[in-house]
Amino acid sequence: MMRSDIDLERIQRRLDALWEIGQTDGGGVTRLAYSDEETAAIEYVCEELEAAFEIRTDHLGNVFATRDSDADRSLFLGSHLDTVHNGGRLDGALGVVVALEAIQTAYAEGDPQIPPTLVIFRGEESSRFGQWGVGSRGALGQLTVEDLSATDQSNVPLWQAMQSQGLRPQNFSEPTIDLDRAVGFLEAHIEQGRVLHEADEQLGIVNSIRGPVRHRVTVEGDYDHSGATPMPLRRDAIAGSAKMVTEIEATASEAAEGGDLVATVGEFTPEGGAINKVCGEVTFPIDIRSNDESYRDETETRMLDRVQSIADERDLEVSTSLLDRTPPVELDADMVAHLESLITEFDVSYRVLPSGGGHDAMNFQYAGVPTGLVFVPSVDGISHSPKEETDPEAIHDAAALFAEMLLEGPPKRG
Amino acid sequence: MMRSDIDLERIQRRLDALWEIGQTDGGGVTRLAYSDEETAAIEYVCEELEAAFEIRTDHLGNVFATRDSDADRSLFLGSHLDTVHNGGRLDGALGVVVALEAIQTAYAEGDPQIPPTLVIFRGEESSRFGQWGVGSRGALGQLTVEDLSATDQSNVPLWQAMQSQGLRPQNFSEPTIDLDRAVGFLEAHIEQGRVLHEADEQLGIVNSIRGPVRHRVTVEGDYDHSGATPMPLRRDAIAGSAKMVTEIEATASEAAEGGDLVATVGEFTPEGGAINKVCGEVTFPIDIRSNDESYRDETETRMLDRVQSIADERDLEVSTSLLDRTPPVELDADMVAHLESLITEFDVSYRVLPSGGGHDAMNFQYAGVPTGLVFVPSVDGISHSPKEETDPEAIHDAAALFAEMLLEGPPKRG
Repeated sequence: MMRSDIDLERIQRRLDALWEIGQTDGGGVTRLAYSDEETAAIEYVCEELEAAFEIRTDHLGNVFATRDSDADRSLFLGSHLDTVHNGGRLDGALGVVVALEAIQTAYAEGDPQIPPTLVIFRGEESSRFGQWGVGSRGALGQLTVEDLSATDQSNVPLWQAMQSQGLRPQNFSEPTIDLDRAVGFLEAHIEQGRVLHEADEQLGIVNSIRGPVRHRVTVEGDYDHSGATPMPLRRDAIAGSAKMVTEIEATASEAAEGGDLVATVGEFTPEGGAINKVCGEVTFPIDIRSNDESYRDETETRMLDRVQSIADERDLEVSTSLLDRTPPVELDADMVAHLESLITEFDVSYRVLPSGGGHDAMNFQYAGVPTGLVFVPSVDGISHSPKEETDPEAIHDAAALFAEMLLEGPPKRG
Repeated sequence: MMRSDIDLERIQRRLDALWEIGQTDGGGVTRLAYSDEETAAIEYVCEELEAAFEIRTDHLGNVFATRDSDADRSLFLGSHLDTVHNGGRLDGALGVVVALEAIQTAYAEGDPQIPPTLVIFRGEESSRFGQWGVGSRGALGQLTVEDLSATDQSNVPLWQAMQSQGLRPQNFSEPTIDLDRAVGFLEAHIEQGRVLHEADEQLGIVNSIRGPVRHRVTVEGDYDHSGATPMPLRRDAIAGSAKMVTEIEATASEAAEGGDLVATVGEFTPEGGAINKVCGEVTFPIDIRSNDESYRDETETRMLDRVQSIADERDLEVSTSLLDRTPPVELDADMVAHLESLITEFDVSYRVLPSGGGHDAMNFQYAGVPTGLVFVPSVDGISHSPKEETDPEAIHDAAALFAEMLLEGPPKRG
């Protein structure tokens, strides 16, 4: 196969057609999980499949399309078509279009070693129901009835939204994919960070997915008059919290030099603040991520100890509540090595890197399926925004890489 | 005169009656500037005056009540009756009731050296129109037509609110008080800080009023994915701003050891923050106050330089806009000394201290009238809240102090 066998115009045409479905005034896209727009996008992709493809929809609305449903084994490729509110045209859609292009090119140029299956997962984004990866978790038997009771802003429960799309969810503990048949899963996605963009690299091969631990911190002091309260008499929740944020960042930067670690305070909410008041209460979240769970948790302990010390030094009350503790995931090492060996054939610049956020691919790896996740650059690191952009050549190269794997076969198991 | 001549029950009865006017569910008071409630409170106080008092209302609604309007000289005493939204029962009202008690006691117990005038200023609080000290500034000829165009939340301009209370504001540059007659002004007020409360002192004699300089700071960086963006690639506006707040506080604490200085960041507003995002924009105000203008301004320069350095170190954009630059005021030194000498007769614990905020008294001192401002403690430093409280004995002592000055006369001019 030649790189030039990939039809970039066809990719662009499909991305543009999907962009139309749920397009917002500012050029963004709103195709929420289990919305009519998401269903319409799925129907569009199915119409792009030749008659040779057999299309199956599971009880969660996930779509599986293959030309050889009787094969003992299959290599799965795909992503999702839902978006956040006013999101971009690439997050999710790119992965579906790249998978479709790779499959069609492989069949056009030769004979796939293992029959591929195109997968379209529903409801990957958490923005509507606060539930992440609904389709892929459900396909792997990881959803619970409780998950389906989650409601959106209009108080519609997830199960009702599924029913409104003609689905009848049932038997949640039962995978809808025959995992014994799955020799691998491949997903392409925009990076959603700025590592590739800043390094000017075309593709990223993900070796791990960082798991987050998240806390909400509440700091309490005293409300006082800003002009009338001498500095030593203050119990200033904003000043104390600011010092905590400074130390959290310093601890993270230090830890980032010795291992994989990022930590972020992305909100900061004074309660009843005013220009002429010393503020008595602040809440802020901490989000700590690493692909090394013990390194992450050691850093977390140091951070929380430091937060407590600052509170003690300043006579502030501090309380923290755990919001989330998700283990990181190592993606299949053979798959990473195989992707690396294939990519070098194309003379494309790339790097191996951890993913900062979860993707449908993560759930496959959890289920023991050797999984490959490939990133294209996010221009300026932007995602979940109408400004999402990437280099068309990078999309082209991702599709070529997947087509090549279909023709050469997945990694041999050691 | 004896301290016991002061009628504390009468004071309490009047404070309670005023508390009823505009009382809120939680025991607070809402009597906004130029509201019907403020007018009703003024009418109540006027009804408490004996027939011997002649009552004059100026075109701004300020009330002047004296038993000797023909006297060449008068000592003015008073405060305001408006409150912030859901404020306390003491801020303002206490000063009017104490002044009235001092005047009535002085007449009951002897013969004031200089005929006193009770003053009730309108619209001291800025919370309705964003305009502070409207009545006292107007009485001293310091208001402008522009000031009267300020609007409240319902878009009612100040001049219209005045008209709705039967007033016809005019000739703004003309004082409504004959300043040549004014030998002094006395005001009692709750401290609105915790200095007296923490030191367990009964009264405070204010020697100066801190003047604020205020800036609004906007810090801009980049929005990024919290999990996907390595620490060195971030331009994190929350982390940068937190570092700035930490340095502002440190600079203030250091400066407070070498002179009179307080500085506060009382709000902190990330734009579009989220738990899983590196935040790209934060705004916060800085409020810096001192009774020493050059010391304040030197500290301000050091702070703003430090803020700029932090922005430079972190490749953040920072802009500051000046909101306010008010000079501090030295209150009349003879008046302070005279109050000190009178207070020692009563064996009451006190301290001389700067005021953190502006009061009507400040405008009198600006106009060259020797001015005395006396604080009673704010329990736990609380003001502008239904929880405002003070020791009844302190109210009693403040009234006794003012009655004593009426009987012994204001300070002899040096």
